[in-house]
Amino acid sequence: MEPLRLYDFLPSGNGYKIRLLLTQLGMPFERIEVDIIQGLTSTPEFLSKNLNGKIPVLEIESGKYLAESNAILVYLSEGTEYFPYDRFLRAQVLQWLFFEQYSHEPYIATPRFWITILNRGDEYKAEIEKRQISGYLALNVMEKHLATNSFFVGERYSIADISLFAYTHVADEAGYDLTPFPAIQAWISRVKNQPRYIEITEV
Amino acid sequence: MEPLRLYDFLPSGNGYKIRLLLTQLGMPFERIEVDIIQGLTSTPEFLSKNLNGKIPVLEIESGKYLAESNAILVYLSEGTEYFPYDRFLRAQVLQWLFFEQYSHEPYIATPRFWITILNRGDEYKAEIEKRQISGYLALNVMEKHLATNSFFVGERYSIADISLFAYTHVADEAGYDLTPFPAIQAWISRVKNQPRYIEITEV
Repeated sequence: MEPLRLYDFLPSGNGYKIRLLLTQLGMPFERIEVDIIQGLTSTPEFLSKNLNGKIPVLEIESGKYLAESNAILVYLSEGTEYFPYDRFLRAQVLQWLFFEQYSHEPYIATPRFWITILNRGDEYKAEIEKRQISGYLALNVMEKHLATNSFFVGERYSIADISLFAYTHVADEAGYDLTPFPAIQAWISRVKNQPRYIEITEV
Repeated sequence: MEPLRLYDFLPSGNGYKIRLLLTQLGMPFERIEVDIIQGLTSTPEFLSKNLNGKIPVLEIESGKYLAESNAILVYLSEGTEYFPYDRFLRAQVLQWLFFEQYSHEPYIATPRFWITILNRGDEYKAEIEKRQISGYLALNVMEKHLATNSFFVGERYSIADISLFAYTHVADEAGYDLTPFPAIQAWISRVKNQPRYIEITEV
């Protein structure tokens, strides 16, 4: 079997989710770097893989592509220890994955992109300040949940943790201060202590 | 068995997704209206059901709550004709559900909320114009996909269609013109012709 091919951008937390899970699953993969800053996700060739023009995209077999980081996480983790078997627990994992994309990512990942990757934080200052209000609300939701739970679902590490960890543990790169969130900080340590953990830009 | 209880807000497309699926599944449910405009999703009582303070929330059994419209769609449709059995097709459904929440909903549902529900379109004019750029990009992605596909996944109606239909078919209420999107218009007709179809505010 050919190794899976991951269209990726190394600083991306969305790409990192997939790299971390594949590494923890012990699945070999080939990484194709796509420079999103140079617009290489907008070429006709890339759009034939994902009409929405975003990384990560997983090539499952020749010509068979899957986009959206959290959909890829589910696809890869089904039947493994990283995705629950129980129907309600699975639904709770999905609940947190949708929370991550709707209520968390736009407010933490996007400012991080402007500040740390594009190095244009000054230019986006007003928009970043606006987004931080929603970003801190998302962190508050996580803090409250983690105050009484070790992991997001079913008291064990799952793709819900991988998804939320990706941008939360680098929230400082988006201008966030995690000092007021002790439960989040303790959870970050628990995630970092999982077997076969890799850093965000480690390949 | 008690009927499922849905915490809902009638004009909400996210709530409508669940009402439409439950109706098509022939599952009876009790609808509890939560007036989000009056802030009733921010009360301690509601936050005990969903820390993130948003409808819809499905009460599956007494005290067991599930939030995030697209997670609820998956939960309810597993094992039915509205969710594929094949692993890759299921992943493609999830891909479109995440597309809907990340690339579509903030740009179409939110302006609709400001314009049609709050009746404050003038006040939000600049923000609405900015969001329309991304909203039209999302509609373009859908149009391209539907130009060669009858439904979003596997050539049959699924929760991917329900999810994307909810706010697309009322995009005019968000200031969008669907005239340049003939494939989307034809797909809207196909969805409306599904058995047991109900309108967005029909209960």
